[in-house]
Order: sequence, then structure tokens, then C-alpha cells
Amino acid sequence: MKIHIINGPNLNVLGKREPEIYGYTNFKDYFTELQFKYKNIELSYFQSNIEGELISELQECDDVDGVILNAAAYTHNSIGIADAIKTISTPVIEVHISNTHQREDFRKHSFITPVALGCILGFGLKSYELAIKSFTDD
Amino acid sequence: MKIHIINGPNLNVLGKREPEIYGYTNFKDYFTELQFKYKNIELSYFQSNIEGELISELQECDDVDGVILNAAAYTHNSIGIADAIKTISTPVIEVHISNTHQREDFRKHSFITPVALGCILGFGLKSYELAIKSFTDD
Amino acid sequence: MKIHIINGPNLNVLGKREPEIYGYTNFKDYFTELQFKYKNIELSYFQSNIEGELISELQECDDVDGVILNAAAYTHNSIGIADAIKTISTPVIEVHISNTHQREDFRKHSFITPVALGCILGFGLKSYELAIKSFTDD
Amino acid sequence: MKIHIINGPNLNVLGKREPEIYGYTNFKDYFTELQFKYKNIELSYFQSNIEGELISELQECDDVDGVILNAAAYTHNSIGIADAIKTISTPVIEVHISNTHQREDFRKHSFITPVALGCILGFGLKSYELAIKSFTDD
Amino acid sequence: MKIHIINGPNLNVLGKREPEIYGYTNFKDYFTELQFKYKNIELSYFQSNIEGELISELQECDDVDGVILNAAAYTHNSIGIADAIKTISTPVIEVHISNTHQREDFRKHSFITPVALGCILGFGLKSYELAIKSFTDD
Amino acid sequence: MKIHIINGPNLNVLGKREPEIYGYTNFKDYFTELQFKYKNIELSYFQSNIEGELISELQECDDVDGVILNAAAYTHNSIGIADAIKTISTPVIEVHISNTHQREDFRKHSFITPVALGCILGFGLKSYELAIKSFTDD
Amino acid sequence: MKIHIINGPNLNVLGKREPEIYGYTNFKDYFTELQFKYKNIELSYFQSNIEGELISELQECDDVDGVILNAAAYTHNSIGIADAIKTISTPVIEVHISNTHQREDFRKHSFITPVALGCILGFGLKSYELAIKSFTDD
Amino acid sequence: MKIHIINGPNLNVLGKREPEIYGYTNFKDYFTELQFKYKNIELSYFQSNIEGELISELQECDDVDGVILNAAAYTHNSIGIADAIKTISTPVIEVHISNTHQREDFRKHSFITPVALGCILGFGLKSYELAIKSFTDD
Amino acid sequence: MKIHIINGPNLNVLGKREPEIYGYTNFKDYFTELQFKYKNIELSYFQSNIEGELISELQECDDVDGVILNAAAYTHNSIGIADAIKTISTPVIEVHISNTHQREDFRKHSFITPVALGCILGFGLKSYELAIKSFTDD
Amino acid sequence: MKIHIINGPNLNVLGKREPEIYGYTNFKDYFTELQFKYKNIELSYFQSNIEGELISELQECDDVDGVILNAAAYTHNSIGIADAIKTISTPVIEVHISNTHQREDFRKHSFITPVALGCILGFGLKSYELAIKSFTDD
Amino acid sequence: MKIHIINGPNLNVLGKREPEIYGYTNFKDYFTELQFKYKNIELSYFQSNIEGELISELQECDDVDGVILNAAAYTHNSIGIADAIKTISTPVIEVHISNTHQREDFRKHSFITPVALGCILGFGLKSYELAIKSFTDD
Amino acid sequence: MKIHIINGPNLNVLGKREPEIYGYTNFKDYFTELQFKYKNIELSYFQSNIEGELISELQECDDVDGVILNAAAYTHNSIGIADAIKTISTPVIEVHISNTHQREDFRKHSFITPVALGCILGFGLKSYELAIKSFTDD
Repeated sequence: MKIHIINGPNLNVLGKREPEIYGYTNFKDYFTELQFKYKNIELSYFQSNIEGELISELQECDDVDGVILNAAAYTHNSIGIADAIKTISTPVIEVHISNTHQREDFRKHSFITPVALGCILGFGLKSYELAIKSFTDD
Repeated sequence: MKIHIINGPNLNVLGKREPEIYGYTNFKDYFTELQFKYKNIELSYFQSNIEGELISELQECDDVDGVILNAAAYTHNSIGIADAIKTISTPVIEVHISNTHQREDFRKHSFITPVALGCILGFGLKSYELAIKSFTDD
Repeated sequence: MKIHIINGPNLNVLGKREPEIYGYTNFKDYFTELQFKYKNIELSYFQSNIEGELISELQECDDVDGVILNAAAYTHNSIGIADAIKTISTPVIEVHISNTHQREDFRKHSFITPVALGCILGFGLKSYELAIKSFTDD
Repeated sequence: MKIHIINGPNLNVLGKREPEIYGYTNFKDYFTELQFKYKNIELSYFQSNIEGELISELQECDDVDGVILNAAAYTHNSIGIADAIKTISTPVIEVHISNTHQREDFRKHSFITPVALGCILGFGLKSYELAIKSFTDD
Repeated sequence: MKIHIINGPNLNVLGKREPEIYGYTNFKDYFTELQFKYKNIELSYFQSNIEGELISELQECDDVDGVILNAAAYTHNSIGIADAIKTISTPVIEVHISNTHQREDFRKHSFITPVALGCILGFGLKSYELAIKSFTDD
Repeated sequence: MKIHIINGPNLNVLGKREPEIYGYTNFKDYFTELQFKYKNIELSYFQSNIEGELISELQECDDVDGVILNAAAYTHNSIGIADAIKTISTPVIEVHISNTHQREDFRKHSFITPVALGCILGFGLKSYELAIKSFTDD
Repeated sequence: MKIHIINGPNLNVLGKREPEIYGYTNFKDYFTELQFKYKNIELSYFQSNIEGELISELQECDDVDGVILNAAAYTHNSIGIADAIKTISTPVIEVHISNTHQREDFRKHSFITPVALGCILGFGLKSYELAIKSFTDD
Repeated sequence: MKIHIINGPNLNVLGKREPEIYGYTNFKDYFTELQFKYKNIELSYFQSNIEGELISELQECDDVDGVILNAAAYTHNSIGIADAIKTISTPVIEVHISNTHQREDFRKHSFITPVALGCILGFGLKSYELAIKSFTDD
Repeated sequence: MKIHIINGPNLNVLGKREPEIYGYTNFKDYFTELQFKYKNIELSYFQSNIEGELISELQECDDVDGVILNAAAYTHNSIGIADAIKTISTPVIEVHISNTHQREDFRKHSFITPVALGCILGFGLKSYELAIKSFTDD
Repeated sequence: MKIHIINGPNLNVLGKREPEIYGYTNFKDYFTELQFKYKNIELSYFQSNIEGELISELQECDDVDGVILNAAAYTHNSIGIADAIKTISTPVIEVHISNTHQREDFRKHSFITPVALGCILGFGLKSYELAIKSFTDD
Repeated sequence: MKIHIINGPNLNVLGKREPEIYGYTNFKDYFTELQFKYKNIELSYFQSNIEGELISELQECDDVDGVILNAAAYTHNSIGIADAIKTISTPVIEVHISNTHQREDFRKHSFITPVALGCILGFGLKSYELAIKSFTDD
Repeated sequence: MKIHIINGPNLNVLGKREPEIYGYTNFKDYFTELQFKYKNIELSYFQSNIEGELISELQECDDVDGVILNAAAYTHNSIGIADAIKTISTPVIEVHISNTHQREDFRKHSFITPVALGCILGFGLKSYELAIKSFTDD
């Protein structure tokens, strides 16, 4: 089983950005942990701050079994990413590290959720792990 | 570990109500499966169609380790249930069977999410299982 | 033919509550009149002030030929009652005694109408009788 | 007893227009049926696609006992028709063939309801017949 | 003089719920104090988490001289409770422990105020005592 | 000096329609009075309930010195009448018999005012006379 | 007959302020012209930039036969001036020099109109003269 | 191939109305040019200022191959014209001479576009010609 | 104990202004009554129709034990008065004579409540007395 | 004559993405067809998923005779692309393959239309060809 | 060069009011510093809590070279001050001590900015100094 | 002292784009002037049309003493840039060349201001220089 994790803007500085919200862990370290823990799953990772590169990356995901997408700030205003999800048949799970509903009002609306299979938010980095589990039988 | 599942209105007729959205499984059967699968967790279950009974039930949850709450229709208009969550220190996970963002607009707003630890939606009955996993180390 | 009438909050004090709007007749007296007039129809009646009990009552209506529902105040804010109507295949007719559109603005919106077969409002208690007639051939 | 039925725009092509919503019956045929069935009532009929002609027709209705009005598309934006209803003392019943609340959002608002005696919607052509019955003792 | 105090959802856990907002006193203890202090007034008390039970309780208040109502969370969304107030002629005073206008925006709107005689908010438990004084000559 | 008065829907039944708002005088009688009083002005009059006829009439007004327009109900929703005013260079004065701002909210918005020279409202039938005076030197 | 003209903020600099909108005439000069032309009317004049002074001035107007009020900028946001109008029984006519509906959107709303007898706007300084004429028989 | 052009209100005065927006050409002259240029197409033309006549005209268009509709001011508020389009199976192309999105905000919303095949706007009179070309193979 | 009462616009004409809402008592007479009844409290009184004078008065209140403020019309639009309350540490109680929620919609919003200690409204002049009692132990 | 076609996000996967809306043709194949058919026009083509690259491309278009822009998802939220159009004097035609008004509400607003010369939408790929024709005399 | 600084309500208590937002410096002390530092500029200063006095002061500013205006609370609701700015040709710079966009939502809208030359906000008292520098060549 | 200037979309064509708003100076020429004038400050400059590149650039700014950001069109819709500002501790000053509040309504909202230290707008290119001065003692 192949699962591709796609992270949006500012998640490249995780561990540094507002740690009281996002925690002190760097995402790459966390990704290595995930790979170690889920050895039977082929995990891959992509991050970009550029909306259009996230769109292009999603368009290439037809051959994986699942996509875990944290579109970060683009969650709330990118119609293009939502459109890209519809160009592929692979199921996409939306995740968020923080509970976006406890923050600014503009973070309550998501263009991603209506085109995603499901959404997991508020569990810190564990949101990604729960998304992986959503694809597995166990 | 004790986890208490609380279901709101119309979830007592699951399997019968709009099965194209909610599936054909009765929740009690699913709950039995969960108990069988998660033998080391003390799972309990409560359902009511009455908002005030859900409030009272939540107020009694101080002694469990986690609450999994599907407030169903009350998700979108019950300030009382949200207030009840704040009266206890137990973490509450919001779950939804369907992807509520793919349905009517009034289902996009939740009074529960801002006071919950996290939210899991759209995975069918598996949403409950993922919520259980969010409490466990594994 | 079996027709079940379900009345929501404050309709138990009909005849007493704001009689300039709702009239001076007690609903139970009116129901007796209806039974007398429509002897070939099996009429039954339920009233509750509790939203959840109205939900439960609706869930039990699969075996009647028609439901006449005056959800009163819950008309305007109960998603749960609307969801309950969708759990049964029995046609539900929404009725109102007063012309709700001549009163406060918040009484103009109904969660019930989109899931009901039809709506009859403004005819006083005769709204119920017209709803009965909507089920009969005559 | 004299009852005048007034139909608004596009109801002249009933039976042809979107039959999955409005059915296959031509209104004139239905009107003949009504006349046959309600022989003791003097039924008359007027239809126009022109808002101003509907206004003029309503102004002339002081001598009938009741008006049954399906203003169709003008229901949602004609202040002039609502004003015309207020120029006469004859009671006006608003009817709709379809359940307008199951369609586009702009069909949920009616300028007619607040100035009508009552409203009957969603019963197909039977909405007109129920309106006739609302005027009769039976 | 008979005064009936009615408390809505989550006020049964007062002293425990968000004490930084609501204080540490249990309402029953406070009620005992009030009874002791206002011996010449016949004070009674009712609490429920269930909206419909609050409606039923209000309907029964025709024989008291005044009602003090803290509808708590139902303040902001219960049309049914507001309707119940209109079914009785007894004056109803709305009270709130906290200054609801210093909290979430949805707590700024009250369905109760327009049908109450007056409103007292923000004085902690003393709000109830001021409401009692509003009924007395002193 | 030629002044043309154009009246919109339901003003043909003035004196009959809601006399507590519009008074008991028929407009034609009032127009005869105006002609008698303002003999040195060539006054003419047109009324229609049909929006399109009002549009056509306005398009023909290039040869008069002033137009006095009471678009009545169309004031609040006719873009076409506003557009017609812009097709002529003749100044158009908007008048209203009643103070439209003391009535329903939807009567507060006017499509006519931004394209009219000026607006006079609330003086009963005298609004028309003041509009005539606005065109004269005196 | 006594008529009192009250002008609000920035009308003291008329003739200087945005002359393309308000013209080049100083209001005091215009007032002298009015006094000369309407010798049989006792005209008086007050201007203030201070909302509270306009309120006080209005409170003193019980003994005049009519008030002509151009509240200028306060038209759109002063509840206090509107309240002051209601404290007196003297009829108040609202006037505006410019056509306020051809300017910014916030100038379309008036707190004054609903409590005034009538409104005259867009005729330049002639708006005041038309208001005087509204009080006279001629 | 038969194509029917339908023009709405104020387009009968094209060339005269606001020529800086709509140009100096009379539509009938332009229509003659079109007929000359597209000899192999049977072009016909209808114009009315009356909404209801436009509705009636559209209902008669079942036997043409295409309709080109410029509903002008009715574009933004006529539900009846939109309903009429749905009563026929002939494709309808919406055209506008001006770029309606560069004008008042209320011209940005169209009831016609969602029921039209396509929309062409902003090309001056050439919008009509492009609509003709949309029906032809060339 | 020193308590300072501050009244806003139009309260200087109490007893005269809309007595069906505000009663027939002049505030100064009422104030004398209050002084007589609460002899052990040092009561003082200030009224102004001018927003800025109310701001200045509030800024001077650091040396009193409590302020009772009825900002009247300024309640609904004065940010400056709210800001002034924040410049002092003295607790401010907001009072209203009428139940402002039973009147125009714009009277439902208060800039004062979020910065006041508490709010008392709807008890007629007794609102002031209840505010005094809120400061005393009794 | 030089015409440059610029396509926005997800149009690189045309023929694959939601073919029931966008059809089965790849845009590059269609572009080759256009080049073959319009040999006397110098057609060029650019596509990017990145908003900023579309902005840069538009800035370089001063030397072509016309731009045909399908900004796709960015149509609805890119102020930057609209600003870029204003930096060049070349006319820009907005095109859309689908009828965007028959889809989600957020697709009804366009930042592009107010700064484009004209807009053509709903004709499938033929929208591009009609845009080409808008630049040619024929 | 003459520069006039105008401060609005509550700025007379600067240093005392919410010092965590506005700092501990009294404005008059700061103004003395400014005079000392900018000896070659003729600096003057005016403060009032009264909106109308600020209007009057602005009207007198035709003879200075620049105005620095901190309208404080009136920034967000005074149309009269904005109108006053338009009566003079002197450039007006809007300043704010705090970053008003980090506070309540109602502080985000300014009636002043659209009529000011520019706006400087968030730099503490240095905002005034930057405004001075905006007038100087250096 | 190191200050980094970051410019957003379309500022690379300054001097060419809408010069009546933005002036005729190319930004690079202006930047050279700034370097010459402020020799003791280490000024650097970055421009991109791509939102994601602006995000990345901001993330790298931890080692400068101040950032001057003109996000141009992204000011009004980029949550990602606002989030990036929060990932660094360097103070960020928002600048705009034009007075954005005198233009389209959508330019009035800024996602940047609430996370910036301060904002300077409307001074032409001098806005940048004032921002530099905000960092210096002089």
C-alpha cells in the first residue's frame, strides 16, 4: 500500500512556527518516525509553499492508494486544490494538526472537506497517523 | 482505559435511516464488534434523542478517560451540549459517520468542534474506531 | 386508513396561549370533533414539549398511512425532527394554525417544509382538517 | 359561492413545463374536472404571464367569495401583487403545485404569504382543491 | 408572595463548571441562603437540562407572582421557551450569572428578553437576588 | 411648461386601497384639481399596472419639461424603469404618497432615487404638488 | 406661522465644502433670501456641528409650527436625533441638498426618515423652500 | 437553421440610450445587417418591454433551433423568464452588449445564466453575432 | 459610598418623551426620591445630550465607588463612551428604563454591555434602584 | 494577428478531469486543431497551475493583439491576475468551458470579468474559438 | 511649515487609559518633546472628546500645511468628521497609536482613511512623528 | 541594521502599471535611491509574483532587523503570508503605495495588518521610506 502525504505552506517550518499551537517537532523527523512504525506501508512526502505546486502534485497521485493532505492556509481559500482533488480517483484525507475551529473564524471554512473522503483535525501530529490508520484494515 | 460513546438523535435507527448516507449497519451491532475488537478497553455506550439527556450524560463523564460524541443534528445548534463538554475535564472527540460538509450548508457549522479535542468525520462507522485509536498509544 | 397527528411545544395549552392568534379551542376537544367527523379514518394523537420525544414518536410512524405534524416552535430550529422525518417512508404533512409569515421573521424559516410532502398554514384549526383531506380521495 | 382561480406565469404551459416537477396535466383540463366535481361552486379562471395583468385581475375580485392564487415566479419578487391583494377584502389563498422549499433558495421567500389568509403547497394540482375546501364548510 | 426560580441546562453543575466564569458556589446552597434571607417570600426552585421540561414548568407558573428564569444555553436558541412565557400572565425576569456580552458572539442574542419583563445580567449569583428585589416594594 | 405624471401599480385604485395609508381621494379627482390650480402648466397623466408599459411611457417623455413618477411597488425592484429614466434627458422627480420608510423594510430601498433628480415622500397627495413646484420658479 | 430650520454638521461651511455637490451659496445668505420671500412666515435658523446641541434644539421646538431638519452626516447614524424628534409633537420635515442616493452607500440609510413627517431630497437649496411650501396652504 | 433573437426592456431605444455604454446603432439596423450577412440562417426578431410578453415569446420557441436572449434589466430579477426557458428544449444563449460586471453591483447577478446554454457579454453588438456563430459549425 | 448616575441624550425630557414607553415621571424628581430613600449613600447626578460630555464625565469618575450609566441612544453607537469606561477602574452598571429588546432592532446591540460590570433593563425607573442595590451588601 | 491563450490550474489535465463537465478532449490536441483551422492567426499557448506564473505571463502580453484567458479556479479569488490584466493594454477575453453559473455558488463571482473586455462561457471548448472570432472581422 | 495635530476622544487621558495598549506617556508631554525635536516646524495641538468640536476644528485648518488626525473612537463611526476633511484642501494624515486591526472587529473599519491622504498605524506615539516626517522632504 | 524589503505581485512592473495610481517610477530605481540615502542601513530587496515564494522569503527573515512588506494583491486574500509572518520574530511593517481604502471594497480588508507591527499606506513610494524611519531612532 502506497500513501502519499502532502503538506502545504509553512509546514516546512513546523517546530519553529507558533509552537504553542503546532508543537516543537519538525515534520521530517515525524515522517521518519512514521516510516519506521509503518514499515509495511510505502510512505512518501511532499511539501510546498506554492499553491500551484500542490495542485500539480495532487494531479500525479493517481497511482497511490491514498493521499493525506494538510493544505494549511490554502485549506480556506484554494479552489484550485479542491479542483485538483477531483481530477484524481485516489481517496484524499484532509488533516490538520491544530483544532482549526478554536482559532480565527476564517479557519472554520474549508474548500477541501467537501471533496475529501474524510477529515481529521485537532490531534496534533497524531492526525496524520490516524489518517494512515483510516486506510488500513486494522 | 474507559471510553464512553455518546450518540445523539436518530442514531438509534441507524441502518434504517437514509442508508445511502449512513450505511445498513445497526449501531448496537457495530458497538458489539468494537467491544470484541478492543477487549482491553472498557467501552460503554449511551444514546438519546433528547438534547437535555445528552447534556446530563456528558456531565457524568468525569470518571472516564475519553468521550466519543456524535451529537448528530444537535451538532449544529446545541449550545447546551457544548457547554456541558466544558463542565468536564475529560477529552471529548467529535465524530460523524458521513462527511457533513458534502450535505446541506447548515451541517457545516458545529458548536461542538471548538470545545472538543479533535474531530473525525466522513469515514462511516470507522470514524468511531479512529476516535478510539486517538486515545490509545498504538 | 391510519393518520397520526403530532403536536409540538405549547400546543398542549392551546385555547389558553395567545388566543388572539391561536383561538380559544383546546386541541383535545378539537381532536374529538375530528374523530367524530372522520369515523372511517383511524386518527391518533401525540403531543410533547420535548424535541427528542417528537423525534422518537416520528421514528415509530412507519406503520401509519400519514402523519400530520405541527412542530410549533421546533419548526424553525430543529434539524433533529427534520432528520427523523427522513428515517420513515410515511408521508408527513406540515401544518400551522396561524399564518407564521405574518409574525416574527424567525418564524418564516422552516426546517420541516423541505422534508415534508406539503405544507398547510394559516387556516386556524382547519389546517389539520385540510391535511386529513389531502390524504383522502375525496 | 364564487371562487376565482388566478394563475401566474408559465402555468399556461402546465403539462409541458418540467413535468417531473409539475406533472403532465394541462391546467385547463384540470379546471374542467374541478368544475365538474364542485358543481355547487361558481368557479372561474384567469391566467396571465404579465405581472400587471395579475394585479389588475386581483383588483377586480371584490365581488367573489374567495381567490385562489398561484403567482408562480412572481411569488418571490412581486411587491405589486402583494399590494393588490391588500386593495381587496376578499380572502386570498396562496397555492403552489410543487413543494417550493425543495427547490432553489430564492423560491423559499414569498411576498404573497404575509398578505394571504393561508398557504397550501406541495400537493400537486390537489393544492387547488384543498384551497377550495378551505372555503367550504365541509 | 410566591417567586419561582427556573434554571436551565448545566446550572445543576454550578460551582464545578468553568468556575472562573460562574464562581464556586453550588446553586442549591445559594438557594438555601436566599430562602433564609427572604423568609417572607415563598421561594421555590426548578432545574432541568431538557428544553421541553422547562417549557412545561413555565406553563405551570400562572399561580406564582413572579418567575426568575436563567435559561442558560437555551437563552440563545429556544423559541419554545419564549413561546411558553407568552402562555402565562406571570411576569418573568431573565437573569444571567455572567455578563453574556463579554463572551462568544452567539451569546449576545436572546430569544427570552423580548418576552420577559426585564433582564439582569453580569452580577454573579447576585443577579437572582436583584431579580427578587425587582418584585418587592423595598 | 409641460409636466407628465406617471403612476405605477395599484394607484388606479387609490381611495379604495388601504385608505388609512393612502387616503380616500381618487387620483383622477386629485389630478383634475391640480389642472384647475395650475392652469398655466400643461399637465398630463398616465397610469399602468404593467412595468413594461411604464418603461415605454417614460421612453416617450423626451418632449416634456418634467416627469413626476410614483413607481409604487416597482420602486423597490424595477431595474427596467430606472434604465428607462436614463434613456431620456428630461428630469424625473420621484414621489411617494406615504412615508415609505415607516412601512416594511423592503420599501426602504429604491432603484428610482439614484437616477431621479430628487425625491419627495410622505406628504400624501401633496407630494405631487410639491414636485410640480420644484419645476416652477415660484 | 413659525418654521424653524435646523442644520447639522458642516452646513456652516456651505458654499465652500465640495461646491460641485452643494453649490456656491452660503446658507446664511440663502436664509436671508428665504426670509425676504416668505415675509408672512416667521422663519428662524439654528446650526451646530454637535449632535447633542441638535438634540437639545429639537427638544425646544414644541412651540413652532414646523421644523425643517437637515441633519447632514448625523442623518445616517444618530439615533439620538431621531429620539429627540419623537419627544415633540411638532411635525419635522427632513431635507437634503444633494441626492444622497447618488453618493456613498452609507448615505442611503436614514434614521430620520421613519420619524419625520416627510422627506425632500436632491433639489439643491430649493429643498428647503419646498419644505416650507409643504407647511403652507398654497 | 432558424435562430430567434429576443430583446428585453429599453433595447428598443438602442442608439439613443446611454450611447457611451451601448453605442449609437439602432438594433433594427443591426438586425438587417445580420440578416444580410447570414443569409443561410433564418433569423427572426422580437422585442418587448413587458416581462410577461418575453415569457410568452420564449414559450413559443420550441420550433426554432436556437434562441439568443438579451433580457436586459430583467436579467437580474426575472424568475419568470428563467422558468420560461426551462419550458422549452431549444438552447438559449444569453448575450449582453455591455460588460455588465463593470457596472452596478446588482447587474452582476443573472437569473438567466444558470438556465442558459452559455453566456456572451461585453462585445457590443458583436455579442449577438458570436452567439449566432456558436450555433453554426463554422 | 459614592454612586454617580450618568444619563444620556433625551433623558432630560423624561416624563414628556413617549410617556407610554418611559412613564410620566421627571428624572430629577425621581432622583430626589432616591436621595431621600438611600440617605447613607452619596448619590450624584449628571445628564448631557452631548456624547463627548458623557465621555468627559466618565473619565472623572475614578473617585466614586460606582457609576450607573444610561447612555440612551448612544448605547447603540458610541464606541467613545465604551472606551471611556475602560479608562477608569470604577465599576459601571448599564441601565435602561424600557426593555430595549422589545423595540427597534438597532436597540438590541449595545457597545456598553461588554465593558460594563452588569446590565439591568426593563424595570422602568426601578432599574436605577436595582443598580444601586447591586452595589450594596443588602 | 497574434493571439495568446493562457490557461490556469487543472486545465493541463483536461480530458481527464471531471469529463462529464469538461469533456474528453486534451487541450493540447484542441490547440493543434485551432492552429490548423486558423492558419492566418499566430496562435500561442501557455498553461500553469501557479497563480504567480499566470501573472508574469500576462505582464508579457503587451506585444500580442489579444489574450484569451481561462483562469479556471483563480477566476474566483485572484486579485493578482486581475491586477496583471490592468498592467497591459492588450484586450483580454475571459472564457470558461463549463457554464460556471450551473455549479457551486462560489464559481459565480469572477475577479476577471470587470477587467476583461468580454466574457464567453458555457460552450465547451468552442468558447475559445468564439473568443478568437471576437478578435477577427469575420 | 505649520502642522496641526488633532486628537479625538479619550486621548486626553493617555498614559492612564489601558496603558498595556496605549503606553504610559501623557500626550501633552509627548507633544512638548515633538516641539523640541522639530523646532523648524510650527506644531500646534487640539483635543476634544466632542465630535462636533473636532468637525469645527478641522474646518478651520485651511491655513496650515498639514493635519495629523487621530480621531480615536470616532474613526469608526463619524461621517461628520470625514465630511469636514473634505471641506478643506489641507492634506490630512490619519494616525493611530495602536494597531487597530489587532483589536475588536468594529475597529477595522475607518470612515477617515478614504478621505485622508494616508494612514499610519501601530507604531505607538511614533505614529505621530512618522506623520510629521511624511510632510517633510527629509 | 539590516532591513529587507519584500514586494508582491505586479510590483515588478511599477512605473508601467496604472501610473495614475502608482506613479511612473520603477521600483528598482527607487530602491537604488533608498540605498544611496540610507547608507548606514543594510537594505536588501526581493520581489515575486508567486505567493508561495513570498512565504518562503519571509520564513528566511529571522536574521534581519526588520521587514517591509508590500504584499500587493495578496494582502487581501493570503492567509499563508500572514501565517509566515507569525513564524518569525522579526517585526514586519505593512506598506502600500496607494491609499487602498479609496479603491475597490475588496482592497479594504487586509490579512497582513493584524500580524504586522504597523501599517503605512497612501504616501506613494514614500511609504517605504517612512517604514525605514519607523525602525530608526531618528
